[in-house]
Amino acid sequence: MRILGIDPGSVATGYGVVERRGAGAVHVAHGTLRPPRAAALPVRLAFLHAEVARLVAMLRPDAVAIERVFAGRSAASALVLGQARGAVLAALATAGVPIREVAPQHVKLAVTGTGAAEKAQVQAMVRRLLSLAATPQRDAADALAAALCVANEGPLAALRARASGRARSSKGAGGFATHLVVRRVR
Amino acid sequence: MRILGIDPGSVATGYGVVERRGAGAVHVAHGTLRPPRAAALPVRLAFLHAEVARLVAMLRPDAVAIERVFAGRSAASALVLGQARGAVLAALATAGVPIREVAPQHVKLAVTGTGAAEKAQVQAMVRRLLSLAATPQRDAADALAAALCVANEGPLAALRARASGRARSSKGAGGFATHLVVRRVR
Repeated sequence: MRILGIDPGSVATGYGVVERRGAGAVHVAHGTLRPPRAAALPVRLAFLHAEVARLVAMLRPDAVAIERVFAGRSAASALVLGQARGAVLAALATAGVPIREVAPQHVKLAVTGTGAAEKAQVQAMVRRLLSLAATPQRDAADALAAALCVANEGPLAALRARASGRARSSKGAGGFATHLVVRRVR
Repeated sequence: MRILGIDPGSVATGYGVVERRGAGAVHVAHGTLRPPRAAALPVRLAFLHAEVARLVAMLRPDAVAIERVFAGRSAASALVLGQARGAVLAALATAGVPIREVAPQHVKLAVTGTGAAEKAQVQAMVRRLLSLAATPQRDAADALAAALCVANEGPLAALRARASGRARSSKGAGGFATHLVVRRVR
């Protein structure tokens, strides 16, 4: 099970790939897509679309993890982010990869143990969890964190089912609630 | 000179093509792209991207006219619009068509004579200006209006230069100011 995490942005789009191995996850690749700075917006969006298509063709993920957009931003920044996100999502859907949207606080919770973690904490934990030689750059770390979060859904759901002695599907219980249940059961 | 106007939206994306003929413009085509309603957002965005690429390949416009997004909307609606716009702009830039962004009030002004025109006025005037047999649907009318607005830039700039007796470039004077000058000179 190979997950591509992606963190779209018009200046920098982070990506990170992890593979689930048993109860853990291993690092495959990560990086940042940077459209040419001087180019007009549509050209930057075309660049993102093409590069995401290339990444998917090259890395062949089984699923994509992407953060849901939180509401507390300005209309102007929502438009800018939306445009980058639109180009990226179109490329992903054209490639036919299943897409899993995750809430930012769930990504932080899964990786650091707290939904209110700082960016630097996420970067440090991603580095530690994946035994990376260096701390990944912010956008790539966020993408790796989203990928880790989705990669861990399966094992956590399994643990939870075992702990609660019921065979409820993780899907039926609504994604990340499972994570919290596992923590409480411990 | 063939202009493709496009009015992106995640539910309906209007398009309209006009050709400049001397001081006027003639209708070539118009319509509305409607992504499958039941499909997930990324699939709808992939649909828009593919359909816009197909339109450009089929209609071979020399330029694209698209409305600038005005600021007075909510972050949620800006995100939704941004995503559709991102998929559309990526497709246009991939096809290599020059893109001309126009302010909504300038489009209304060019087509109806007032920057504060209602949607219905724009639809009626687009129908009249292009001698259409029926009133085009809203999104397609907006797209045709944007195309007409850009198609008329050249002739209006030429009129203005003649009227003012100076050879200032319409680009240097900043696009739509030229329209107002022409109206005043008359």
